Amino acid sequence: MIEVEIKVRISNPELMRIKFKKNQGVYKFSLVHEDTYFNMPKGLRDFKQTDEALRLRKSLKFNINEDKKDEDIEYFLTYKGKKIDISTKTREEIDLIIEDLEKMKKILNILGFQKVLTVKKERELYEFEFKNYSIEALIDYLPILKQHFIEVEYLTDSLEKIEESQKILFDFLNLLGIKKEESISKSYLELITEKINI
Amino acid sequence: MIEVEIKVRISNPELMRIKFKKNQGVYKFSLVHEDTYFNMPKGLRDFKQTDEALRLRKSLKFNINEDKKDEDIEYFLTYKGKKIDISTKTREEIDLIIEDLEKMKKILNILGFQKVLTVKKERELYEFEFKNYSIEALIDYLPILKQHFIEVEYLTDSLEKIEESQKILFDFLNLLGIKKEESISKSYLELITEKINI
Repeated sequence: MIEVEIKVRISNPELMRIKFKKNQGVYKFSLVHEDTYFNMPKGLRDFKQTDEALRLRKSLKFNINEDKKDEDIEYFLTYKGKKIDISTKTREEIDLIIEDLEKMKKILNILGFQKVLTVKKERELYEFEFKNYSIEALIDYLPILKQHFIEVEYLTDSLEKIEESQKILFDFLNLLGIKKEESISKSYLELITEKINI
Repeated sequence: MIEVEIKVRISNPELMRIKFKKNQGVYKFSLVHEDTYFNMPKGLRDFKQTDEALRLRKSLKFNINEDKKDEDIEYFLTYKGKKIDISTKTREEIDLIIEDLEKMKKILNILGFQKVLTVKKERELYEFEFKNYSIEALIDYLPILKQHFIEVEYLTDSLEKIEESQKILFDFLNLLGIKKEESISKSYLELITEKINI
């Protein structure tokens, strides 16, 4: 799949929730993601140079309107290819559920993959129907950056649809008062490594 | 976990089924395994030299006594460390269920892992209670080798228990008329690569 994604920094998440509601955004659930990034084994290519990512995710899903007991934990292994567009975060993504995080970590470690860092993301997922597109929008908080963001995302399996999807996403953001220039093409991993200088 | 495993070649699987029954072996289910082995990316160590293995498994499980509709398909990623004993196939094993085979193959391919070969194994799993041990025994047929084998296996998490487990397994095999000298310490992958000379 190709993930077409736009990220913008926001200062007021509560205001954004109000705007989401006003635009028929449906709250689906909240997530806490603990994402551990890996680089290739020594002697092979450097993902920082090639703009790829290999990620192990622990995903805790819950609904703020329900009892916390309904927490749902899943684990994912994800590969992300280099960005194929400069104004957005469009890239190939291969994502699969795995049974166990520690076992996968152990295998990656034995195979020589180098742990880069673990990032916590607190997220609220909303869904919108916009111009016949199903758009997912996340209000994210990254404790390590002490900043809120929104990410809007559309998944497509066709390269031809990228440009159209990007246009739709920017139109959608416009509705929320967000301009194209505000789009951050850097990944959270890049923003964090810049900040903590690794 | 540490997998203590003994493999022997057998010529008559039907005779073995009778011996299993005579010794209170309980048929659990049958399996068709399609195992794809990978080697490390070029420039890194060679698993053929280091005696390690990275395996993607498609496992189709069914019961010969039930309707075939109850087939159950699962996928596994498995790492096996080098053998830590010469008379058996005792080695570290890390094994986890994954959601999707093709996605995992694609990730391994992008990361540079080299596909070695795919091997089909037709197996029947039996369980025995023997001297307070739960022992798993498989009657295997490998179409590519045109040969039957039995594999007996015991999983332990302690290095101290290896020797004791091996003794128990050899005692168990003795019950079936199989001698210690018949144990093959080579893996199926090794037996096959020897035969087809890759």
